[in-house]
Amino acid sequence: MAARLIDGFATTAALADVFSDAAVLRAMLRFEAALARAQAGIGMIPASAAAAIGQVERIEAGALAEEARESASLAVPFVKALTARVRESDPAAAGFVHWGATSQDVLDTALVLLLREARATLARDQERLERRLRELSEEHAATVMLARTVLQPAAPTTFGYKAAGWFGAARRSWRGWERAFEEGLQLQFGGAAGTLAAYGSRGPELAAALARELELPMAAAPWHSHRDGMAAVVAHAGIYCGALAKIARDVALLMQAEVGEVAERGGGSSAMPGKRNPAGSVVALAATATVPGMVAGYLGAMAQEHERAAGGWQAEWPMVAGVVQAAGSALAAVADTMGGLTVNGERMRANLAAAGGAAFAEKAAMLLAGRLGRTEAQKKVKEAMAGGSLRDGLAGVLPAEELAAIDCPEDYLGAAEIFRRRLLEE
Amino acid sequence: MAARLIDGFATTAALADVFSDAAVLRAMLRFEAALARAQAGIGMIPASAAAAIGQVERIEAGALAEEARESASLAVPFVKALTARVRESDPAAAGFVHWGATSQDVLDTALVLLLREARATLARDQERLERRLRELSEEHAATVMLARTVLQPAAPTTFGYKAAGWFGAARRSWRGWERAFEEGLQLQFGGAAGTLAAYGSRGPELAAALARELELPMAAAPWHSHRDGMAAVVAHAGIYCGALAKIARDVALLMQAEVGEVAERGGGSSAMPGKRNPAGSVVALAATATVPGMVAGYLGAMAQEHERAAGGWQAEWPMVAGVVQAAGSALAAVADTMGGLTVNGERMRANLAAAGGAAFAEKAAMLLAGRLGRTEAQKKVKEAMAGGSLRDGLAGVLPAEELAAIDCPEDYLGAAEIFRRRLLEE
Amino acid sequence: MAARLIDGFATTAALADVFSDAAVLRAMLRFEAALARAQAGIGMIPASAAAAIGQVERIEAGALAEEARESASLAVPFVKALTARVRESDPAAAGFVHWGATSQDVLDTALVLLLREARATLARDQERLERRLRELSEEHAATVMLARTVLQPAAPTTFGYKAAGWFGAARRSWRGWERAFEEGLQLQFGGAAGTLAAYGSRGPELAAALARELELPMAAAPWHSHRDGMAAVVAHAGIYCGALAKIARDVALLMQAEVGEVAERGGGSSAMPGKRNPAGSVVALAATATVPGMVAGYLGAMAQEHERAAGGWQAEWPMVAGVVQAAGSALAAVADTMGGLTVNGERMRANLAAAGGAAFAEKAAMLLAGRLGRTEAQKKVKEAMAGGSLRDGLAGVLPAEELAAIDCPEDYLGAAEIFRRRLLEE
Amino acid sequence: MAARLIDGFATTAALADVFSDAAVLRAMLRFEAALARAQAGIGMIPASAAAAIGQVERIEAGALAEEARESASLAVPFVKALTARVRESDPAAAGFVHWGATSQDVLDTALVLLLREARATLARDQERLERRLRELSEEHAATVMLARTVLQPAAPTTFGYKAAGWFGAARRSWRGWERAFEEGLQLQFGGAAGTLAAYGSRGPELAAALARELELPMAAAPWHSHRDGMAAVVAHAGIYCGALAKIARDVALLMQAEVGEVAERGGGSSAMPGKRNPAGSVVALAATATVPGMVAGYLGAMAQEHERAAGGWQAEWPMVAGVVQAAGSALAAVADTMGGLTVNGERMRANLAAAGGAAFAEKAAMLLAGRLGRTEAQKKVKEAMAGGSLRDGLAGVLPAEELAAIDCPEDYLGAAEIFRRRLLEE
Repeated sequence: MAARLIDGFATTAALADVFSDAAVLRAMLRFEAALARAQAGIGMIPASAAAAIGQVERIEAGALAEEARESASLAVPFVKALTARVRESDPAAAGFVHWGATSQDVLDTALVLLLREARATLARDQERLERRLRELSEEHAATVMLARTVLQPAAPTTFGYKAAGWFGAARRSWRGWERAFEEGLQLQFGGAAGTLAAYGSRGPELAAALARELELPMAAAPWHSHRDGMAAVVAHAGIYCGALAKIARDVALLMQAEVGEVAERGGGSSAMPGKRNPAGSVVALAATATVPGMVAGYLGAMAQEHERAAGGWQAEWPMVAGVVQAAGSALAAVADTMGGLTVNGERMRANLAAAGGAAFAEKAAMLLAGRLGRTEAQKKVKEAMAGGSLRDGLAGVLPAEELAAIDCPEDYLGAAEIFRRRLLEE
Repeated sequence: MAARLIDGFATTAALADVFSDAAVLRAMLRFEAALARAQAGIGMIPASAAAAIGQVERIEAGALAEEARESASLAVPFVKALTARVRESDPAAAGFVHWGATSQDVLDTALVLLLREARATLARDQERLERRLRELSEEHAATVMLARTVLQPAAPTTFGYKAAGWFGAARRSWRGWERAFEEGLQLQFGGAAGTLAAYGSRGPELAAALARELELPMAAAPWHSHRDGMAAVVAHAGIYCGALAKIARDVALLMQAEVGEVAERGGGSSAMPGKRNPAGSVVALAATATVPGMVAGYLGAMAQEHERAAGGWQAEWPMVAGVVQAAGSALAAVADTMGGLTVNGERMRANLAAAGGAAFAEKAAMLLAGRLGRTEAQKKVKEAMAGGSLRDGLAGVLPAEELAAIDCPEDYLGAAEIFRRRLLEE
Repeated sequence: MAARLIDGFATTAALADVFSDAAVLRAMLRFEAALARAQAGIGMIPASAAAAIGQVERIEAGALAEEARESASLAVPFVKALTARVRESDPAAAGFVHWGATSQDVLDTALVLLLREARATLARDQERLERRLRELSEEHAATVMLARTVLQPAAPTTFGYKAAGWFGAARRSWRGWERAFEEGLQLQFGGAAGTLAAYGSRGPELAAALARELELPMAAAPWHSHRDGMAAVVAHAGIYCGALAKIARDVALLMQAEVGEVAERGGGSSAMPGKRNPAGSVVALAATATVPGMVAGYLGAMAQEHERAAGGWQAEWPMVAGVVQAAGSALAAVADTMGGLTVNGERMRANLAAAGGAAFAEKAAMLLAGRLGRTEAQKKVKEAMAGGSLRDGLAGVLPAEELAAIDCPEDYLGAAEIFRRRLLEE
Repeated sequence: MAARLIDGFATTAALADVFSDAAVLRAMLRFEAALARAQAGIGMIPASAAAAIGQVERIEAGALAEEARESASLAVPFVKALTARVRESDPAAAGFVHWGATSQDVLDTALVLLLREARATLARDQERLERRLRELSEEHAATVMLARTVLQPAAPTTFGYKAAGWFGAARRSWRGWERAFEEGLQLQFGGAAGTLAAYGSRGPELAAALARELELPMAAAPWHSHRDGMAAVVAHAGIYCGALAKIARDVALLMQAEVGEVAERGGGSSAMPGKRNPAGSVVALAATATVPGMVAGYLGAMAQEHERAAGGWQAEWPMVAGVVQAAGSALAAVADTMGGLTVNGERMRANLAAAGGAAFAEKAAMLLAGRLGRTEAQKKVKEAMAGGSLRDGLAGVLPAEELAAIDCPEDYLGAAEIFRRRLLEE
């Protein structure tokens, strides 16, 4: 009953694995085994019980999804299934499964473990993307092109600076997300009421041992219904996706036949032979389009009742896994796109030339403004542009030398190179 | 690589089937077979080709999800795979696969076919829910209870009226959704540019034949980048989920131990033996919590570029399938909940009595207001309540007869029964 | 303390008036006056009281917004202020203000009255938009241009068909919204608990009279916490905005300097003289960008507790007024844009020609496929395109006559004109 | 044309001031004055011009909102108005207004200045909230109460720990937001194309001077279409609102008449005298309900085209100001609520007692499990609970001493006090 196709571009094969049924159950088993080990380590349960529990390597998904509906908790049928499996090998040990823990402990911590793995998967593609964007930026530090504002020609810029802008946003937002991972991926362990009362006075000691077993940081207290840490993971996924979507949109626009400044390797059409679509950008835009809504869903679910929510918490998994997978899908697509991107410097220069006055109107106005004031200067330039040619219109107004260089893009790049380098070095 | 567990309560087994990889591919095959049959029927392609195409019963999902990323279109690898399969049995027929059609034709129409099936699945549970809510309403037409506003006691009402309110909202919003299905589930067939130019002047004739084959209505024109019809399907799913969530929240609140007026059959805990959670309501609330964000995602993706979007369209499938499955999951949970709901009329009456003055303050104020005016009356009642007992406080103020009956809920139900019946009959 | 500037393009002057403080208070007064008249009409309160209440024409906003926070209900300080005002002219009448009604009755009904007015305001611009789109479509029925899919050239289409597509979506989604207005704008009147108990057995009779006074339809029962009707108003605003955003995006893309097929009258820049921005489209896109989130917010707030929500209901006003104003802002912008749109048919034809093979690849493939089968035909066309010229590449492959006309757009419009007319006539 | 009423609980008086038309224009003036000063300081424009520009203290909002629609930029009519005002006093200076800057420089920076002010306003209420929550926590460190999970009784906890949980989430999420403010509130200064080319090679020098004038940090490069910094401000507002909403929901639930464990000072009803509603919690829940959708709107608008977006950027102001004001409204409401909160320790203990077995089932099961194993123990406890009394059911099963203390809450608080202190000290 796989459903990869209807999910469209919502994940990658690697991330689908990370959040697969098998992986979810492995992470839950890992929690239970670590809990038992930690308990045995401090003499709370017999070492043999911990060993028996730790030996279960696999629980079948089987009917668990359906059974989870009956208690609104996957942990209930899972613990039952695990207990049965342990009983087969060691009946006494079965009594120590999930000892003193609650559903949310195993479910939240399992999610944290999956996210840790997802983060490592993402980091590899992120590194590839950063490397490639840096390369593109360095290679095209001097490739002039039109800046475009409000989808109209503005002044000149360089493709190197543009790529550095992409790099900067992708990197900053990735780092923001990494920080959220670091701060938010914490052990969840509170027992039925968030007090660990089942362990008497030994709760904190056990919690520390369990955290060590799982190599997870501990929060000041269980976060059963205080979800700000996980919310930051989700929200920063949204910001990161926004940064990727911006890159993808720029590429799709630059690749329009009428613009033609960059080209993806591209994907074909089922109707039109030879068509080359910005497939990578499209996948990235499609993947990220679903993300803001999931972020909103998560934030909206944060008003969780008392010590465990009735609905808001149980809603989280698909949204958390959803934003991470969408981000990973977009990331892979953008990294691939950049890997195969062709940059057409000639077309860039030609489009600059074709924009004519539009690209150099500000320059002309600034040159004139020193003499005429800004308002008068802008009026003059406007008139010149209406006449069709900035150069003709300003003949006799600007000194010949300035006029000659009026549409030289290299002369009007301002701090593009300085900003480019700052972005790469940030 | 199934991912039912991480999806939490986002679907049901039945709806997961409707949107499974196998079902998606069946629907796509169905489109291609119907297209070929329609074309053969009007003499556009050989009957033998249509027969060969129609014989393919199954395409394996295999690597299609990954291949789809290369062209940002599942249709591209699908058509390739289908062509290869047809070629095995009839090489000449292979040339007629997907004849003149475009990716969006097969993908949009396949989605429409899946939604038609999902709707039928939903209708069965909806009928069960309506029947049960009607029963509950009839059975408890005279069961008095507190109305609660802003989570505080208001005047009396009946559980029958409350259940009728649930019924009314569930039914109206279902009907709104059904209308959206009827209006929005249309054949998509426009070819590469939405003109059906590949068929010369015979496009409309072929479209009509194809619509008949698939028993689907036709739009005035292809809707490749005009998504209002599908948007209504998605948005009404959101409204419907809102109606279900309201029911679920009410049940969860009424089932609080301190309120105790209804009880779900309930689900257990992994920590606390004997705990009875409002599991059905929780599943419904969890399922619906993800829906508004998906609706927003769909609406936000409607600004689709030109004749086929670069991202907005490709983002739709998971959101459309997502809202439908979430609605179905919530519906099943609410229907199950209602099926097993215990109503505790004694506790309802006890809570009414305990609320004391609060439930009858308006009544007392209205009785007094005729004599004292509204402001003075409200002041008097407020004072009486502050004293702890409405009856004591109003002794000597209200006539003895009115005073005696001041806290009789049956005397202060107003039009509850009339409204109840109107809701059931609407 | 006006805040029009920070709200950006979120409203128009006309709609800001509709939802202004003064208008809100007028609508609330209108409810209270109509209630008193209806009550007097059936002998429930003295006619003189109704007259005195009806004479209050204005309540000052003053500190009402702040006072409303204390009770979480604007109605509480409003009723107090109104009572004081009535008392000034007729102390006895003051006792009959808001007689038997509850906060939600006046607040919901006031919102309904405002929405009715907003709808009329919107309808005028909608009519202007439809008329202009129809004109554009008729005028350019034969203006050929590139269809573009995934932001790449596809086959030819006409601007008339494109404009008809805009028309169709704008009209259908407007009608959907109108239906939602008709079904959802209903009197709210239920009293403290939704039973109208304060009126004894006369509640329904009074409700009917009040509905007549306000010329509003009645629901089967009060809808205090069942918000599906209003939700449909909000959701269809979202769908309508999606249709408008699609038009705006198309215009902004077509107006790119490198495409140059249409031009808005346009707006200038503060930096670049002579720059002509797609200002109307930008305003429309900016206005609509906020809408899906508000729709989601409304849907998410539908799980309203019991007989009046604690938060979800009180959250509605800004979202309802927000989507309507945003829709109106986008509508005005798109209607203005269309009113001043310049269509450059020559540039359209030139872009078609420049696209060359891309626009006619499907055509060539279909011509060949009849002879070679689809796969072989697509291969041949792909090779020809790779060579740079479809005509050269297919010389000797296609008959000379077909070859000569291979890139004639008028020969490859399929059903564009038929679909165009159907859309206008729908 | 004020619209505070329709905006419901979306802002406070103080924050409405921060984002008022007058404040927006002041912030824009401040940018222009600082720019001129910085330019004069490095000899780029005459000192007299800077003085003349700096003397304008006020621009009237007048028709600016409407004029802004024509260019899709408030800066265009603003600069025109400012130029006219400067010309009145010093015609030569008028030519130096907005010298070399672009719309986005003044608009983004003005927003940043407003946000800086908003942050200071928020900080005051946040400090009040933290102080009060800390007080409540300390005061009730030993006040036992039921923990509730999935809206059902769980084991005992303390109100002090619960308040510390609120404190921890409010504080952590505020700190997260503060960090976002610190990192995201940066000078925007890039000129027409983000290169500062209008200033030749002196752009970076001027930018640094301008940043000093405004006491704002500088980004590595202009962030015209890279919005991750501002996105973090918006997203963390969403997380913070989630933390506040959780507190408000808990209070509203605890204040239910049937629970009665806390009480707000409360607000009245327009229908029911003496009713005491959780008005502060309702305002907080209403305010925060609109926030996730605005966050989603912002994130969805991040895919900004090239060097300045066509729509996505222009959509930001209402969403940014919206989330901040909503957060401030919720914060004020929660701080007020906590300021007046009554805590009913007796009722808490009584509810614990009434929950009976439910609160101590885990405890009993853990006591038994050491002897019987977990499965058997849970079964025994379940049976005891079904019999109605844990104590009776377990008589003879548990040792008399353990049985006697079985329902002593103080004996089953686990690490509540440790966690409480950790949260306050974090």
